[in-house]
Amino acid sequence: MSRTVAVLRELGADWAVLTAPESLVYALGYAPAVETGPSPFAAGPALALVGRDGEAALILPATEVAGPRAGQVFRYDNYGLHHADLPRGAFEAEFQKLRGHMRPSGRFAIDGAAHSAWIDGLLPPGERIDLTAALRRQRMTKTDAEVAALTRCAELAAIGQTRMMAAARPGISELALFAAIREVMEREAGERLAVTGDLLSGRARTAGMTGWPGKRVLGQGDAIIADIAPRFGGYWGDSCATVVLGTPTEAQLRVFGAARNALDLAIAEIRPGMTAGAAHRLVRGCVQGAGFDYPHHTGHSIGTAVHEHPRLCDDETTVLRAGMVLMVEPGAYDPAIGGARTEWMLHVTETGCRPLAPFPLVAAVNSVE
Amino acid sequence: MSRTVAVLRELGADWAVLTAPESLVYALGYAPAVETGPSPFAAGPALALVGRDGEAALILPATEVAGPRAGQVFRYDNYGLHHADLPRGAFEAEFQKLRGHMRPSGRFAIDGAAHSAWIDGLLPPGERIDLTAALRRQRMTKTDAEVAALTRCAELAAIGQTRMMAAARPGISELALFAAIREVMEREAGERLAVTGDLLSGRARTAGMTGWPGKRVLGQGDAIIADIAPRFGGYWGDSCATVVLGTPTEAQLRVFGAARNALDLAIAEIRPGMTAGAAHRLVRGCVQGAGFDYPHHTGHSIGTAVHEHPRLCDDETTVLRAGMVLMVEPGAYDPAIGGARTEWMLHVTETGCRPLAPFPLVAAVNSVE
Repeated sequence: MSRTVAVLRELGADWAVLTAPESLVYALGYAPAVETGPSPFAAGPALALVGRDGEAALILPATEVAGPRAGQVFRYDNYGLHHADLPRGAFEAEFQKLRGHMRPSGRFAIDGAAHSAWIDGLLPPGERIDLTAALRRQRMTKTDAEVAALTRCAELAAIGQTRMMAAARPGISELALFAAIREVMEREAGERLAVTGDLLSGRARTAGMTGWPGKRVLGQGDAIIADIAPRFGGYWGDSCATVVLGTPTEAQLRVFGAARNALDLAIAEIRPGMTAGAAHRLVRGCVQGAGFDYPHHTGHSIGTAVHEHPRLCDDETTVLRAGMVLMVEPGAYDPAIGGARTEWMLHVTETGCRPLAPFPLVAAVNSVE
Repeated sequence: MSRTVAVLRELGADWAVLTAPESLVYALGYAPAVETGPSPFAAGPALALVGRDGEAALILPATEVAGPRAGQVFRYDNYGLHHADLPRGAFEAEFQKLRGHMRPSGRFAIDGAAHSAWIDGLLPPGERIDLTAALRRQRMTKTDAEVAALTRCAELAAIGQTRMMAAARPGISELALFAAIREVMEREAGERLAVTGDLLSGRARTAGMTGWPGKRVLGQGDAIIADIAPRFGGYWGDSCATVVLGTPTEAQLRVFGAARNALDLAIAEIRPGMTAGAAHRLVRGCVQGAGFDYPHHTGHSIGTAVHEHPRLCDDETTVLRAGMVLMVEPGAYDPAIGGARTEWMLHVTETGCRPLAPFPLVAAVNSVE
């Protein structure tokens, strides 16, 4: 930290407010989780300007292959021969071109948490309105095209879970099992995928609910929680399966059954008109009735972010509507037994809900070596 | 985009400025590259406050396992049962606790591009100073501990490249080859790793310089460019190897040799006192002397970001100093032949430079099925 403090003193500043992952490592030795890292080739997140009459432009690094479906694209040099102040200086120059072309003025709606002070300084001065809450409401229900995109993600997750159940065996590490899951999903998608979630094995790890795969080697009788969330085409899938390697104990079956039955109840009962909070209490009540509990939300909407609103939790009063796509993920955790969680994607219809690309939820996989 | 425009009209705003990846997909169908995605469990990037007397605090999601080496940690609920406005509402409440505890005041130095307008509104009003340039200068030279961390990353990259050379064979897809590389690095590290870079095969793809692995299946005689950059412990490694499957053609050998000889020249000639621009011209001149060229920078510093300053490019006047760690990555690209690029990490010493954990740079791997 002393070198960051030296910079503060050099600047005559009292406090540094640091959020860039590389600054956090440098100042505090804190390395944010893997998939939060920014692209090394980008000056910052991609930036779009959208006007109220439908004009749109997007500014991207020159090396970025993907492009938008709509709007004009401005690309800034980020890998070139000449400019020492890449990519930031090149971004600023290109952004001025974009401004000259689009001539934005008036009140600007901004993307709250992601809108940077640096970017703001490149815009005309004036009023800013945070659009987070309005966009959050707009994104709660999905179009048919969005449901199709989410179904494709659900299919990828199901392929991953099926591979998990085939590849899990005594002697494989959590990391290697995760690599097998990720590889089959990437093969199916034909591209690298962002994958988040949990991969946990054994009593202590599964009772702990969350965590990325580590060095732990699986053994006969171990439970495995695989919470697998791939992103494809800008939309997210999510899923959770719990299996025991070999023959589950009676206690493991009770934990698994508590989660599994609560998911079945959710599929039977979730429908338009119910509040998200009521859905949460219903599902959690089922797990509690089986003698277990979970200290996390019952679920969440999903779309262009893996966690969207509404969340299925106590104080959420949003009324469920047809067109929502909800993750429902009841769990049951007991330090003396271990944990289980089961999760499918549920599409809320006019009369109820239906799972998108459900995969088998079995309590155990045959693991005799 | 119509639904984003609807939000603008609802807000009475003229323009939306969008940077959150999920907003870009929603408005424009543009999905930013994989590893730029934010954590679904975070309200935004982790945020640190560092005071000029060395006080420090960091605010993190409750489910984040990693923590800092220094400073007090404040954790906000991001997966809980109760609060519907997670994680943002919980972040704001926890941030007020942090503010009450640290009582920051005075001039604030901010992390330019990453400092969000939303965060700024949670701070006391007053002057802001962008610390980007000063921190960039500070980070140019590395401490011994940083060189050790970077050496470990170089070792991981070397393990990945060695695996690439063993696993490359006709019939394997780029994606599967990349999965094999990533898996061996993750096994060695014992954890999931962020990995960026390129994996390209065949004449057209290697002549194109950059790109993530895709569905293309490798064939006998194909060149492969593997540019592999893993992050471990908050520091980055980087590397590039080019190999031909089987017996290279004379033209492929000339392309490979142009890149390889330029890297050898860099190792022989780079030393303190030379400017970054001069190093660039020296290395590029070597490739040009062999009848080829590359349209990208010759290299870049590396540390807590994979691309740091100085960059080795034409207008960079920074003088190289002992303690810098530089990536040098000369390439040679010809649409009629294909491309090659070779890259090691070079530690600038008092008298010259030395490669960190170099891996074999061979022109071909034996690929008889």
